[in-house]
Amino acid sequence: MQISFVDIIEFVGTFAFAISGIRLASAKQFDLFGAFVVGLVTAIGGGTIRDLLLDVTPFWMSNSIYLIITALALIWVMAFSKYLVRMDNTFFIFDAIGLALFAVVGIQKTLDAGFPLWVATIMGTFTGAAGGVLRDVFINEIPLIFRKDIYAMACVMGGFAYWVCGRLGCEAITTQITCGVCVFLTRVLAVKFHVSLPTLKGEELHHTK
Amino acid sequence: MQISFVDIIEFVGTFAFAISGIRLASAKQFDLFGAFVVGLVTAIGGGTIRDLLLDVTPFWMSNSIYLIITALALIWVMAFSKYLVRMDNTFFIFDAIGLALFAVVGIQKTLDAGFPLWVATIMGTFTGAAGGVLRDVFINEIPLIFRKDIYAMACVMGGFAYWVCGRLGCEAITTQITCGVCVFLTRVLAVKFHVSLPTLKGEELHHTK
Amino acid sequence: MQISFVDIIEFVGTFAFAISGIRLASAKQFDLFGAFVVGLVTAIGGGTIRDLLLDVTPFWMSNSIYLIITALALIWVMAFSKYLVRMDNTFFIFDAIGLALFAVVGIQKTLDAGFPLWVATIMGTFTGAAGGVLRDVFINEIPLIFRKDIYAMACVMGGFAYWVCGRLGCEAITTQITCGVCVFLTRVLAVKFHVSLPTLKGEELHHTK
Repeated sequence: MQISFVDIIEFVGTFAFAISGIRLASAKQFDLFGAFVVGLVTAIGGGTIRDLLLDVTPFWMSNSIYLIITALALIWVMAFSKYLVRMDNTFFIFDAIGLALFAVVGIQKTLDAGFPLWVATIMGTFTGAAGGVLRDVFINEIPLIFRKDIYAMACVMGGFAYWVCGRLGCEAITTQITCGVCVFLTRVLAVKFHVSLPTLKGEELHHTK
Repeated sequence: MQISFVDIIEFVGTFAFAISGIRLASAKQFDLFGAFVVGLVTAIGGGTIRDLLLDVTPFWMSNSIYLIITALALIWVMAFSKYLVRMDNTFFIFDAIGLALFAVVGIQKTLDAGFPLWVATIMGTFTGAAGGVLRDVFINEIPLIFRKDIYAMACVMGGFAYWVCGRLGCEAITTQITCGVCVFLTRVLAVKFHVSLPTLKGEELHHTK
Repeated sequence: MQISFVDIIEFVGTFAFAISGIRLASAKQFDLFGAFVVGLVTAIGGGTIRDLLLDVTPFWMSNSIYLIITALALIWVMAFSKYLVRMDNTFFIFDAIGLALFAVVGIQKTLDAGFPLWVATIMGTFTGAAGGVLRDVFINEIPLIFRKDIYAMACVMGGFAYWVCGRLGCEAITTQITCGVCVFLTRVLAVKFHVSLPTLKGEELHHTK
């Protein structure tokens, strides 16, 4: 098996996603197994939903590397729990790299399956962001990405980049790199400059249909 | 593309479902993106689960109209937030119409795929009610339909109407209309006359398996 | 239709799983329909996720027995609600039997579909434990199996038993029985001797990505 540059980036992204799940699970006193599951779901949940919707075999069922990376992430959190906070900036960058790559993979895989770009953009967003939603459902919190920061919207920007590149007649590799850079920059710059989407002015609504 | 009467009803139902999701999300201070996602999930979540179980391509992946309607619902909520409460009765009727139509679509699609009526009734109920369950999971509330009102049970009544019509040898169109009317009336009359299912007399159960 | 010994065990397991869902739902004041749905999801949710991932028709869509058993469980809870607590030990054994059998079914079905054992072990764990996770999401609690007891890990031990039996060249039926016994004993002994997985020493983590 040969490992490409893209593979390495994907592994780094998987690792960063798994770490985020494991840390939140351990903050809620999950046991080792629970933390592993939440880490795994964060890392592979989005891609799994994408593959179910595209009706293909979920990607992680043909390669055990994603489980191994999640196990490594669990060991990492156990070993370096005291130093994790100091690494927050590093993990933020890893996470943004993972988001960018997951979005590109999701968009490309959907286009290859013959769907139009707007479906692909949704799938790219799922791939990047749905794992975090599942994680938050499991730890019984309101999904973070629905309330804070530009996160999933960065994936939508990636779909937009695809569209522009398509218009300009770019090659596949140029398009993918542009998309990834666009997602990454949107995410990083939004956090750096505290850009966020406006909140709807909510009514005082009691939970009735 | 020609738009039939059924299409228009389906769009109205989608709009009403999306509105209900967006309003509950905004009451929880979701940002614009979060509100859009919750609205979308409320509108298309049930049909998506149905299509995954039937192993067909989810309906919204071949027609962008459902995303567009959800976007319109978002704009509507932003523009008329002050007047929404006054429209509650209108939305209630729209929602009941949507429920009825979603149930008919779900049942018919499942029968066409060769499954028996009891499976179709479950799928009709999923189509009508599962979107609301997903919505409530995302906003971190106990699903409303499990505790209040006759909602999903109206879809089950629709399946019963199918069975009766089948016994009587009705034509397809007659059966579908009867089913839809039956779902709609069950829902509306149950709310009007405050009919609800009994609650199980719960033990004092601590959350242990 | 002929009913085998395995079928009977499966029905007993389904009944025990449904009871656990219905009791927890009724403790949260769910109505009859809500309790039925939560019972059903607890009983068939894990196998449904497995079948979706394996891309086969969900098992309960070709046999209505699972719905009927869930309905019987609902009637049982209504009729004997006062005596249920006294039956807790019985239900614990039923539940452990169900877990063991569900794990064996999940592993075998996945192997038969041509996947390697590590995928099958995950699927066995899903089949046994994912229903309980869905149940806890619906009743808006943090999934119990992530925090307490050896439950899902028992299924992983079952996968390990498969591997050992494969090494030793055992026949299919011997392998399956060994796996089931292994899951059952792991579960029962862990509870009896209060064995549990360690908890990760959580950071004080506020819910931010």
